[in-house]
Amino acid sequence: MRVLILGGDGYLGWPTAMNLSALGHNVMVVDNYLRRQIAQQTSSEPLFPNPNLIERCDAFREATGCDIKARIADCSDYRLLEEIIRDFQPEGLVHYAEQPSAPYSMQGFEEARLTLNNNLQVTFNVIWAVLEHAPNCHIVKLGTMGEYGTPNIDIEEGWLDVSHNGRNQKFLYPRQGGSLYHTTKVLDTDLLWFYVRTYGLKVTDLMQGPVYGLYTDESSKDRRLLPNFHYDDIFGTVVNRFIVQAVAGVPMTVYGGGGQTRGYLNLKDTLRCVQLALENPVPSGELRILNQFTEQFSVNELAERVVDAAKGIGINATVNSIPNPRKELESHYYNAKHQNLIEMGLKPTLMSTEVLTEMMETVRSFEQLIVPEKILPRVNWNK
Amino acid sequence: MRVLILGGDGYLGWPTAMNLSALGHNVMVVDNYLRRQIAQQTSSEPLFPNPNLIERCDAFREATGCDIKARIADCSDYRLLEEIIRDFQPEGLVHYAEQPSAPYSMQGFEEARLTLNNNLQVTFNVIWAVLEHAPNCHIVKLGTMGEYGTPNIDIEEGWLDVSHNGRNQKFLYPRQGGSLYHTTKVLDTDLLWFYVRTYGLKVTDLMQGPVYGLYTDESSKDRRLLPNFHYDDIFGTVVNRFIVQAVAGVPMTVYGGGGQTRGYLNLKDTLRCVQLALENPVPSGELRILNQFTEQFSVNELAERVVDAAKGIGINATVNSIPNPRKELESHYYNAKHQNLIEMGLKPTLMSTEVLTEMMETVRSFEQLIVPEKILPRVNWNK
Repeated sequence: MRVLILGGDGYLGWPTAMNLSALGHNVMVVDNYLRRQIAQQTSSEPLFPNPNLIERCDAFREATGCDIKARIADCSDYRLLEEIIRDFQPEGLVHYAEQPSAPYSMQGFEEARLTLNNNLQVTFNVIWAVLEHAPNCHIVKLGTMGEYGTPNIDIEEGWLDVSHNGRNQKFLYPRQGGSLYHTTKVLDTDLLWFYVRTYGLKVTDLMQGPVYGLYTDESSKDRRLLPNFHYDDIFGTVVNRFIVQAVAGVPMTVYGGGGQTRGYLNLKDTLRCVQLALENPVPSGELRILNQFTEQFSVNELAERVVDAAKGIGINATVNSIPNPRKELESHYYNAKHQNLIEMGLKPTLMSTEVLTEMMETVRSFEQLIVPEKILPRVNWNK
Repeated sequence: MRVLILGGDGYLGWPTAMNLSALGHNVMVVDNYLRRQIAQQTSSEPLFPNPNLIERCDAFREATGCDIKARIADCSDYRLLEEIIRDFQPEGLVHYAEQPSAPYSMQGFEEARLTLNNNLQVTFNVIWAVLEHAPNCHIVKLGTMGEYGTPNIDIEEGWLDVSHNGRNQKFLYPRQGGSLYHTTKVLDTDLLWFYVRTYGLKVTDLMQGPVYGLYTDESSKDRRLLPNFHYDDIFGTVVNRFIVQAVAGVPMTVYGGGGQTRGYLNLKDTLRCVQLALENPVPSGELRILNQFTEQFSVNELAERVVDAAKGIGINATVNSIPNPRKELESHYYNAKHQNLIEMGLKPTLMSTEVLTEMMETVRSFEQLIVPEKILPRVNWNK
């Protein structure tokens, strides 16, 4: 299958590209290095330097003989994106090309504007370029479980049947994000759903939880193939941050009460979910929504797991609660369904001590590069 | 009260400005003439020419002695908008500054892009300029009943209490618009709600039905003060279109089955609703949503009413069903609540024979200017 990956230089984009290429798909990646630029501007560089996308493709070719095409281009420029889609004629398109940081989107006007404009414009351009030049292409869009927020009722997979005054209606599950970034993902879903039902697009929207991990079948072949590992407050996800703090010998910073509960997954499972979505496309006019995570934890439970795993390799990790820089419930009901991907064939890689230990060992090998100050929150939700 | 009206040259913006000024408020209007430009580009000029916004303000001053300040500026340019808000320090802001045509938004890529970018950017800029320069200002935003679509359950005023698996949650009422234009209003609501709950903005979001009418207390003083009267397929609302077709002696064009039901209101009631919203601001952190219409009709019922009123002045109006250019249900449940504005003091001006006759008489005085071809649908929802 010809698969086009937008945002192919990202934490998920690059491992996805390698995985699909190794599976025999014809893969092309596009990226404009926006995340690399923002990381520099905000002093949020990853733990270790990553080769650029062209060098990554070269290294992957050396290691596996597989060929990934790369194009450095901004998908918010419609003329560039339509040219790429017209020429490559993708059968599947994975849309990761968004500004992915919640704290960055809350930093101020310029950061919020960039997040809103970039994310909406790329989604809009993807919709139109596919409609105009590859109308049978199946779009696999990365959303987030954060679109749902933390409602007091069970979170279903994308849709909700509502009974009201004796009548029934199925709706898109109501969404309420916790940051401007999350809100742009809500807007993306609204936009995609409009064009799916009006023009018959084929879309799978993946509501993904926070991802952790470093190793995939491909990234473990060569250090140059490792994903960008962010541990800062801007791009670092919570598990990755805790592991770096444990290794650095500083307390793991829990925001507020630590009862915030979310669904998490291993990077390996992200790749498998995207593969399952691509290899099982939806018919024209269908928006399929899949909740993409494997286990629910509170932040306090995550911290405990990291403490336990650290103990096993002689690290005495500690936990420190700090004032919550975000506006979010710190104690709440959370029960999110996630059956669809399991039924499609996902076999979860759970957050075992072995998985956490392997990550910690790798982070320890880069210990001299850790800047612990980057982990503390620098953006506050309260204006 | 200092009231800033964005989109003050529009069908609703200009009558609102005159009304609030006549009530003694200190009114400033801003417009970039986007609607006038699109009308020219799409051969959708109004029935009679309207003076420009500066000339309108001059004519209004002559007729009433009241002074409306005008500024020709594009609110999607943040630097201009923040300067205006910083200098004028509005206590109330009426946000009408959006591309308002559903058919235009469905014409093609460029039209869709303009609609999405203009509408979202202006809403985003309003949010930030108010936050930064006039944080106590109450934003009154024009939404549309079309955000709700036509669900199979009762439409509540903005919010929906959901019971699910034995638990309860209040959500924003799920929205599903029938065009890209309507979808941009859904996105606006999501964006406003995020910033209201996060930064404590004060917002009233008016879910308005289609408006009809020409005369208000102010516009009836002088022909130069009449609103833009669009009867074309791009900007003309259905009642205004039917009246022009009746006067022109061509059949009223009902799209498809004609069972499409919506809530309508007279232009005079729009002005009263906006006044009520402004004079009863919400506290910080509240998003108040008001369903703004007074009567529900199907398209067939509207056509019958126009036929009846026409008969009274010797016009034999006829009806012709044409293939529906839109994708919408032509027969559906529709029961939308609209109690809040009534409780706040709205006394509806209903769609009486007198009201329709007065409009027809005025349109008849411009009969020689009617171009009946402009009324037939030129944009099709089916790609």
